[in-house]
Amino acid sequence: MIVGLGPGPADWMTLEARRAIAEASDIVGYSPYVDRLALRLAQRVHASDNRVEMRRARLALKLAEGGRQVAVVSGGDPGVFAMAAALFEAIEEKPEWLKLDIRVMPGVTAMQAAAARLGAPLGHDFCAISLSDNLKPWTIVERRLRAACEGDFVIALYNPASQARPTRITQAFELLRGAKAATTPVAFARAVGRADEALTLATLCDADPSLADMATLVVVGSSETRFIARDWARPWMMTPRSYEARR
Amino acid sequence: MIVGLGPGPADWMTLEARRAIAEASDIVGYSPYVDRLALRLAQRVHASDNRVEMRRARLALKLAEGGRQVAVVSGGDPGVFAMAAALFEAIEEKPEWLKLDIRVMPGVTAMQAAAARLGAPLGHDFCAISLSDNLKPWTIVERRLRAACEGDFVIALYNPASQARPTRITQAFELLRGAKAATTPVAFARAVGRADEALTLATLCDADPSLADMATLVVVGSSETRFIARDWARPWMMTPRSYEARR
Repeated sequence: MIVGLGPGPADWMTLEARRAIAEASDIVGYSPYVDRLALRLAQRVHASDNRVEMRRARLALKLAEGGRQVAVVSGGDPGVFAMAAALFEAIEEKPEWLKLDIRVMPGVTAMQAAAARLGAPLGHDFCAISLSDNLKPWTIVERRLRAACEGDFVIALYNPASQARPTRITQAFELLRGAKAATTPVAFARAVGRADEALTLATLCDADPSLADMATLVVVGSSETRFIARDWARPWMMTPRSYEARR
Repeated sequence: MIVGLGPGPADWMTLEARRAIAEASDIVGYSPYVDRLALRLAQRVHASDNRVEMRRARLALKLAEGGRQVAVVSGGDPGVFAMAAALFEAIEEKPEWLKLDIRVMPGVTAMQAAAARLGAPLGHDFCAISLSDNLKPWTIVERRLRAACEGDFVIALYNPASQARPTRITQAFELLRGAKAATTPVAFARAVGRADEALTLATLCDADPSLADMATLVVVGSSETRFIARDWARPWMMTPRSYEARR
């Protein structure tokens, strides 16, 4: 079972995910995700470091092959920049693994949690791009950013920065500023649902991309996205369903 | 409260959504979604037809303004081609509505449920496009499809067809066939999680777009997406995280 825990708080987990974890004999995952869970003493925990997805996938497959009921836990949705792809990359390494009964259990991913807090920024066609170039060349990221502008998509940027590549988000913003209106609404949604949640709104021209870290999801609007001002709170950010509402 | 019910089965609902519905005095939503819920007798139900999103949004805002605790229920995630955008479109019509305490509660959306069943097709950068041209010109859809090909995104197609516009999905496939490899993996995921769930895999050249109806989510792969054959079951569909794994 490849189980999505959602973005953080237990109440963003699905009932299916909660049940899968309760029933598992073995929990495999990145330590901070495993640490979130209330487990039984009899459950074996295999916590690991970040960036060892393939090793974690193989361990899970090996345990399952040995008859264990394994839950591979993943933050957000395992299908969105998370453990499901790693597991299916590993599965072909051993013919026996293709016979396993594998189930993916979806969850709320970071862009959905961010969107919920912001209003309805993903209210129309959108795309999700990871800025990590650990596993793909940066030229592919640039190609996708350009295509996202060409298609006037709302853009959700995952993995905008890390200590190893602090400048990728700055480079991405330079590209976006060359292709989109200066007034395009932008949001930095950090650690949504957690105690240190922080939301920052800006326009593309005045946004400070260095606000983005590993825990941040960045949303860049389409030509239709706008802020709705409120007196007593931060503006709502929304993308109308109708394309030419203002014209 | 704008509440995501997930794609169908109750166990794909978040705990937050379940609690919000239990606590609401009034439930507002499209009849089939409201019908899914186990409600208390004291809860007032305001069920409505499809395609009256704005009327539904105004009703919910009016009830909330009158002091009711309203849950607007939405299939999937309210932020993804659903009720959140409609509600924030309506909110500016009356200054009082901007003072309401509005919360969006995210949920699992159709493409995540489809992806979970298929394997990991959204394992890398992807986009979501609605083929409905009720609210946007078809030229915008075409522009986005072309950009999605240019960016080599995995593409999730929402609202691929309806009785009013049965040929949009065929037109979309013609465009995609002109821009992507004939062997690109494609999936039609119908009514995922419901009793009549049906999954059909194909390649772009031999796919039959007329398989898609209102209840279908179509996934079209990137150049990296592939099928993993299994003896005893349908292939897995997956997009590796690594861009040049096969090269």
